[in-house]
Parts: sequence; C-alpha cells; structure tokens
Amino acid sequence: MRKPQRIQHIGDNVKLGTDVEIWNLTYVGNGTEIGDGTKIGSLVHIDYDVKIGRRCKIEGCVYIPPLTVIGDDVFVGPGATFTNDPYPASGRLVGTRVEDEVVVGAGAVIGPGLTLGRGCVIGMGAVVTRDVPPEGVVYGNPARRGYEAAEYRKKKERWQKGR
Amino acid sequence: MRKPQRIQHIGDNVKLGTDVEIWNLTYVGNGTEIGDGTKIGSLVHIDYDVKIGRRCKIEGCVYIPPLTVIGDDVFVGPGATFTNDPYPASGRLVGTRVEDEVVVGAGAVIGPGLTLGRGCVIGMGAVVTRDVPPEGVVYGNPARRGYEAAEYRKKKERWQKGR
Amino acid sequence: MRKPQRIQHIGDNVKLGTDVEIWNLTYVGNGTEIGDGTKIGSLVHIDYDVKIGRRCKIEGCVYIPPLTVIGDDVFVGPGATFTNDPYPASGRLVGTRVEDEVVVGAGAVIGPGLTLGRGCVIGMGAVVTRDVPPEGVVYGNPARRGYEAAEYRKKKERWQKGR
Repeated sequence: MRKPQRIQHIGDNVKLGTDVEIWNLTYVGNGTEIGDGTKIGSLVHIDYDVKIGRRCKIEGCVYIPPLTVIGDDVFVGPGATFTNDPYPASGRLVGTRVEDEVVVGAGAVIGPGLTLGRGCVIGMGAVVTRDVPPEGVVYGNPARRGYEAAEYRKKKERWQKGR
Repeated sequence: MRKPQRIQHIGDNVKLGTDVEIWNLTYVGNGTEIGDGTKIGSLVHIDYDVKIGRRCKIEGCVYIPPLTVIGDDVFVGPGATFTNDPYPASGRLVGTRVEDEVVVGAGAVIGPGLTLGRGCVIGMGAVVTRDVPPEGVVYGNPARRGYEAAEYRKKKERWQKGR
Repeated sequence: MRKPQRIQHIGDNVKLGTDVEIWNLTYVGNGTEIGDGTKIGSLVHIDYDVKIGRRCKIEGCVYIPPLTVIGDDVFVGPGATFTNDPYPASGRLVGTRVEDEVVVGAGAVIGPGLTLGRGCVIGMGAVVTRDVPPEGVVYGNPARRGYEAAEYRKKKERWQKGR
C-alpha cells in the first residue's frame, strides 16, 4: 500500500498478539486484548476492556462494547452490533460471551449478557435476545432456533466445493 | 490518554454546549447543535442541521441525518439509524423528532418524519415505521406496541439493584 | 468548508469518474471503480474490487464488500450492509449485483450473490435472502414481496408534491 499513515484510534494498554491486523478508520479502546492472528476490518468500534481471541475475523462496521469476551476462531460479519446494557443507561453493564468457532452474520444485533455457545451460527440480520446453545443456528427478529450447525457445515462444504 | 490528536470531522458553525464529549472517528456536519453534557461515541455520523439536547448519550456507529431533533436525556444505542426521506431521493426531507427521555435500542432503524414520544422505549433491532406514543415500548420488524415504559422502568430498577 | 484536510482511506488504483464526491471518514479499497457524479457519504466502507455506477448516492455508514457490482442511479440508504459470503469464511466469495435505479432502504441487510433487479425497492430494515425481481418491493425479516415499484413511484410523486 502506498499510504504509510495510519488513521486509527488505538487506546492505551491495548495488548495485541502476533500478526494482528487492524485496518484504517478503526477504534480500539484502552486495555483491550486481541489474540494472535486476528484481523479487524475498517470502521470497527471495539471499546475498552474487550477480549478477543486468536484467529478471529471481525469485519467492517462492527460495534463491540466494553466487557465483551470473544473466543478463538470466531467470525463476526459486517455491521454486527453487540451490547452490554439491558436497560440503558442502567450503570450495571454485562458483557456478552462468544465461545470458540461462533459465526455471527452480517447486521446481527446481539443482546447484553448472553452466551453464544461454541460453534453456533447467528443468521444475517438476526436480533438475538436469548442465549444460543452450542451448535445452534438462529435467525429472525427476535431470533429463533433453526437447524443445527452440523447441517450448516455440510452446506458450507458443498458451497466450498462449488455445489 | 496519550493521544493528543483528534481524528474527527467537525463542520462549520457547530454549536457545542458545555461538557460535550465527542469521541474520535466521528463526523458532525455544519450547523448542528449539541446541548450541555451530551456524550457522542466514536464512528458516529451526525449530519448538518441536527439538534441534540442536553445530557444525551449517543453510542458508537449511530447515523443521524439532517433535520433530526433530539430532546434531553435521550439514549441512542449503538448502530441505530435514523432517516429523513420516505421515498429516496425525493428531495423533500422530513426529520424525526425524539422527545425527552427516550431510549432507542441498539441497531434500531427509525423511519422518517416520525415522533418518538416522551419516555418511550424502542427495542433493540426494532424497525420503526409509525409514531410511538409517549411511554410506549415497541419492538420487532415492523415494530409493534409491547408493554408500557412504566413496566420497563420497574424492570430497570430491579436490574440496577442486582435483581 | 474550512477544513482542507481529508480524513479518508483511498486505496491504490481506485478509479473515480468526474464529479465523484467522497466524504470524510470513508474507506475505499484498492481497485474499486466509482462512476461519474456518484456521491459517497461519511463512515462508509467500500472494499476492494467493487464497481459502482454513475449518479448513485451511497449514504453514511454503509458497508459494501469485495465483488459487489452496483449499477447507475442507485440509492443506498444509511447503515445498509451488503455481503459476499454465504458460509463465512468459506473462501468462495460471490458478490451481489444491484441493477440500475434500485433503492435500498436504511439499515437493510443484503445477502451474498443476489441480484436486486432493475428499479426494485428494498424496504428499511429488510433482511434480503433471495433475489428481488425488477420492480419488486420487499420488506421484513426475512424480506417478502410487497407491492410493485410502480405504486411506490406514485406514492413518491404524491409525497414530492406535498401530498
């Protein structure tokens, strides 16, 4: 790239693993930790005291508030929004926990204090108001349980093979 | 903070009250007014000729177009989008009016020219196509009337007390 | 405007037509082409290898991924999100094609590899999971067919005349 300047806000005491990529026009708050090999897109807001694991991909225009904890190998699609306050502005914040290998679809909105279980899939545009069990697939507004992640992975394999 | 530089676009003739905070990577258009004690997050777009009252909190990644008028003590959750044109690009814009003490949930989309009545609550991910009466609570796509804000406030109090 | 500085990321080999406007705090990736007279708002993410036609208007906080192809005279409302991967991260990306004169409402989420047919209208907050035929009007989550664009245009005309 011809542009040497970085247009970013990276806060104090941010801990970045090796091979972390953060694109331009992205905000990372104080004290946030991002694990090895994770890639963060542009126009992303990651607030203070967030933990993101290894080999994640956070696409552009995502919002992640304080206290959110994200595991390893998680994909967060563009425009997804996380929250941490069930009754704004309550003053009592509670982060959402995203376990390993979760996929969050584009434009999804995730309620505060939830657990997105290991390997679950949040559909595009889903508005998630309850915990999602491991391997569950949810979509809609409000999000409801659809099929299982095992089926999702079969579909994914077919897609990767070109049908 | 160790970063003295501001990465912001603040337009001409913007009127800021006392103790207004505007975070980095935020855009504020010409002629916009923001009242005392209001805090604006990062990656927020506030266009020209917007009025925002006192002691509001506008979270990150929010979009507020021209002609929007927001009262005092309003909370706008992250990723919420306001609009001002019912038939783009009609050339005849109409701002939405947000009365005092309204709460707009994360990722909500608010139609043009609406009134969000005093103390009403817009659920997370709601797509609001009609006026919301004072003290109403709405959610869904399209947003429908749920319970009353009085009940919301009771729940909020319980939450603040730790259940 | 009194601000001479540009706060933008414009990639390499971006091809801009005449009279293209790109606002501050916007990201445009490498190799992207934007046609004559198109206006791009602030806090917009347009990735690499995107094609956008002439006289389009892309409002603020929009996300457009690689391989998206947008025709002429298209309106994309604020906060809309496009996608290009049906099973993230599959490694097999497929762009969405937006034909001429399409209107995409605020906060809409558009699935990968779809065709939005000429003159169709995507409602505010719609989550589009299938192709939309020319002149179709869709809304909801998931988006369903409503009325026809001809009726939309009549409504628009009435609105422009002040009722």
